[in-house]
Amino acid sequence: MEDFLTVFQMIGTAAFAISGAITAVHAGLDLFGIIALGVMTATAGGVIRDIILGIFPPIAFVNSMYVLTAALISVVVFLIARDEIRSGTSMNNHSFRVILLLGDSIGLGVFTTAGMYTAITRFSADNGFLVIFSGVVTGVGGGFLRDVSIHILPEIFSKHVYAVASIAGALISLYLFRHSDPYTAIYIGTGIIVLIRLLAARYRWSLPRVQS
Amino acid sequence: MEDFLTVFQMIGTAAFAISGAITAVHAGLDLFGIIALGVMTATAGGVIRDIILGIFPPIAFVNSMYVLTAALISVVVFLIARDEIRSGTSMNNHSFRVILLLGDSIGLGVFTTAGMYTAITRFSADNGFLVIFSGVVTGVGGGFLRDVSIHILPEIFSKHVYAVASIAGALISLYLFRHSDPYTAIYIGTGIIVLIRLLAARYRWSLPRVQS
Amino acid sequence: MEDFLTVFQMIGTAAFAISGAITAVHAGLDLFGIIALGVMTATAGGVIRDIILGIFPPIAFVNSMYVLTAALISVVVFLIARDEIRSGTSMNNHSFRVILLLGDSIGLGVFTTAGMYTAITRFSADNGFLVIFSGVVTGVGGGFLRDVSIHILPEIFSKHVYAVASIAGALISLYLFRHSDPYTAIYIGTGIIVLIRLLAARYRWSLPRVQS
Repeated sequence: MEDFLTVFQMIGTAAFAISGAITAVHAGLDLFGIIALGVMTATAGGVIRDIILGIFPPIAFVNSMYVLTAALISVVVFLIARDEIRSGTSMNNHSFRVILLLGDSIGLGVFTTAGMYTAITRFSADNGFLVIFSGVVTGVGGGFLRDVSIHILPEIFSKHVYAVASIAGALISLYLFRHSDPYTAIYIGTGIIVLIRLLAARYRWSLPRVQS
Repeated sequence: MEDFLTVFQMIGTAAFAISGAITAVHAGLDLFGIIALGVMTATAGGVIRDIILGIFPPIAFVNSMYVLTAALISVVVFLIARDEIRSGTSMNNHSFRVILLLGDSIGLGVFTTAGMYTAITRFSADNGFLVIFSGVVTGVGGGFLRDVSIHILPEIFSKHVYAVASIAGALISLYLFRHSDPYTAIYIGTGIIVLIRLLAARYRWSLPRVQS
Repeated sequence: MEDFLTVFQMIGTAAFAISGAITAVHAGLDLFGIIALGVMTATAGGVIRDIILGIFPPIAFVNSMYVLTAALISVVVFLIARDEIRSGTSMNNHSFRVILLLGDSIGLGVFTTAGMYTAITRFSADNGFLVIFSGVVTGVGGGFLRDVSIHILPEIFSKHVYAVASIAGALISLYLFRHSDPYTAIYIGTGIIVLIRLLAARYRWSLPRVQS
């Protein structure tokens, strides 16, 4: 389980690093700004989770793999973006938005369920609220810090069912953590979160506003 | 005392949730954005306090009442705001600003003194600086995160004697914690903070600027 | 060593307070806004470091000297800025930028190496990544929060080799912590960080961008 979780979180780290690096490219940052925002987006959720659950130092400070993976991915995003522009075959905005959405959704899904699992192993699955709220905060934390740092309105305030997707997946995942095995709970929970996010983006689901 | 403090903090939570939700309505957020900002504003101060004082997980993660109360209040703010606009009897800007000011001031007062009380019970009242600084950071934390998230200049940097009100109330409250009972210290301290904020807003008190 | 470190960090605190207060003056804040941003910039790095390394309450909450020094320095910056404007002999933008750069660079250098030293004494110098990452986050934390709070793009995303300077100094400092004494490691590491920042600003070093 330990090894599985490390690999699983590495996928989430890579996905969030992509979203951070693309956001940084769009904002016109230089190479190091891109790496900094990629690393921050990829590690913030896990660091917030570890602080909330009382794990010191946070894992991202102890195991260098998370930061190094995020930095490497950010450099790759930089190189691709530069080549695209130089060769004049620059990806259209649509492709960029799809990759950004995918990275952000996978990161959201992975860190929500990984956050829940950490809360369960450190405490228990008894306090469902603690497990779900820890998972949701872990999931949304990276994207929140990414957007606030760069002065974009955080997606949690603006995007179609962003936190709703995380909460819905977390509820189903909690049920599976309690009545099934952790692998199933993590796979299904993550899948549901990504699916809801993609469906919401595709069909432009949105929540009611004060002025419609 | 335990029960009193829970009820007392619930009042502060509701007050900050109102301020967060109204700010979100003004910023044009959808229903979930309003709930997210309401919950974040209402819980951030307490979470920051618990982290500083070494309480893990923070109480807002263990006891669901805080988040649920804040979410419920945010939905109510949403419904009222929508009805106001639909019926054309929309509250004027003045009423909104008064409610926002009240919510924010009560939240500031409650969390400043509740933060002080937590610092005293966890450590002692001996280090007055620790008690006051913990209280002030707890008090201003929620509003700070609310404003930074939504890209408004935080009130602590701009509003008439915002942190000054918190510090003044905290100083008097510390004296009362040491020489009287906690109830008196909390009531008087909170009252002074709210009063200073209201008087400052009413009479437009302000501090000197570089260019006047 | 304890005394040396306190004095050393007080220098970093003063330097960061200057950078925070000048930034606040530029943003047109009133006296208390200037103090608030000065104190926040000066203490945030150390508070983040203590949270990451599991030190509760953070030292800036226990020892009032840090907050009081930062507040005093901020008042002095306010008075000088006001006198400059009143007497019409207002420092030109260039002088202001030089002082801001100096304060920020010294703060970055001091807190990077002080963060590393804290990580080493609390854990060990064995995990080089933990030591360096703790140092860099401590170093960049204050300036990051300063800029995000006031809605400026954080320097870590935009400035010539900002975090690169911190990382380079940290690498050399780590080598010296392991093979020499802490004083040497702290002095040389800090000196290198300040030097790189100043050279980068002087010769306008910058990193590649996507569109050049």
